[in-house]
Amino acid sequence: MDKTALFNLSYGLYIIGAKDGGRDVGCVVNTVTQATSVPTTLIVCINKDNYTNACIKKTKEFSVSILSEETKQNTIGVFGFSSSKDKDKFAEVPTGHTPAGLPYVSEGVTSYLECKVIESVDNFTHTIFIAEVIEAENLSKEPPMTYAYYHRVLKGKTPPKASSYVAEEEETPATPSKYVCSVCGYVYPGSTEEFEQLFEDYVCPICNVPKSKFVLKA
Amino acid sequence: MDKTALFNLSYGLYIIGAKDGGRDVGCVVNTVTQATSVPTTLIVCINKDNYTNACIKKTKEFSVSILSEETKQNTIGVFGFSSSKDKDKFAEVPTGHTPAGLPYVSEGVTSYLECKVIESVDNFTHTIFIAEVIEAENLSKEPPMTYAYYHRVLKGKTPPKASSYVAEEEETPATPSKYVCSVCGYVYPGSTEEFEQLFEDYVCPICNVPKSKFVLKA
Repeated sequence: MDKTALFNLSYGLYIIGAKDGGRDVGCVVNTVTQATSVPTTLIVCINKDNYTNACIKKTKEFSVSILSEETKQNTIGVFGFSSSKDKDKFAEVPTGHTPAGLPYVSEGVTSYLECKVIESVDNFTHTIFIAEVIEAENLSKEPPMTYAYYHRVLKGKTPPKASSYVAEEEETPATPSKYVCSVCGYVYPGSTEEFEQLFEDYVCPICNVPKSKFVLKA
Repeated sequence: MDKTALFNLSYGLYIIGAKDGGRDVGCVVNTVTQATSVPTTLIVCINKDNYTNACIKKTKEFSVSILSEETKQNTIGVFGFSSSKDKDKFAEVPTGHTPAGLPYVSEGVTSYLECKVIESVDNFTHTIFIAEVIEAENLSKEPPMTYAYYHRVLKGKTPPKASSYVAEEEETPATPSKYVCSVCGYVYPGSTEEFEQLFEDYVCPICNVPKSKFVLKA
């Protein structure tokens, strides 16, 4: 089985917002998919280790901010590699609130959606939330950011017309300092700075161990 | 609620293959999403009216062909606007079979996946299949086709850097003959030929009635 085949699935990039009592919490995901038109439902998969997951399970509601190509890299950084348990992420980005009071990112996005959970399906490390879309508004006409665009353009690579992960493997340069998987030896092809910016739930594409198993090698 | 906000979600384009006794069946979808890495699971939503849906419910297995930008428009036409109940769709395209004997499209694709259903979740008009990926192989290095690319490029429109649906609404030209929604009056902006090539499950983006409610107007 060649797991790199899965890198050819296409995604967007989204911030999920939720309420934790009076606090705003959120995280970044790439798995928002419309499931039906009538009624308007969607699916999102969120890691169970993610604080936002626990909040959604309690409140049964969340927002989706659909990131555009104009999203500042800092926004993804804030939501992607720290926990809402410790940090008020929405305080660091332009924020709006949906009619139900759910936080959304208000700049560098195409639209926000307000969603009410219909069903939560337990699936190994993640929860699959099935939700009805209650409100939806467009905030800009900026093009939606795809996950491939994020990997290709925001990391400053020349865009080869291939999926981002595969392209990164092909382009592995012989630079002095690299993050290496301590289990299988896979060398992360980007810079050390790029590796450090990766989502908390990044896993080795070869052997699937978590980000924490990577070590810096000269 | 502005439902056009949902057009900003990003997707790929995929052929789902399944077995119906000794026959190969399949359909086109845009909702394949990886759900977890360990184990490797994915989700796909398939309309209950779709013959392939019933076959997957029986056999609990399916393939995914990840379409590339080199996919022939005919392939999407064959899988998108006829039923496997009446027609041997795979006979009309280059076909391979996975180790478990599931059919996949072997040209104009990046990869195939072989999947085993773990759980089927009923969700209004669609079934959400949660499945484990058993086999995966890359077949080309062609860039994966996104749903936006399909709408933008394969319909021969100038690519504005906006999501395809919204762009189509903006570009509505005053041409002699158009398909019009008999319920809300929405004018399908593409040519009559393009409308006829749309998926069976196309719905009016304004009022959500099925394709069959559209009428040709001079």
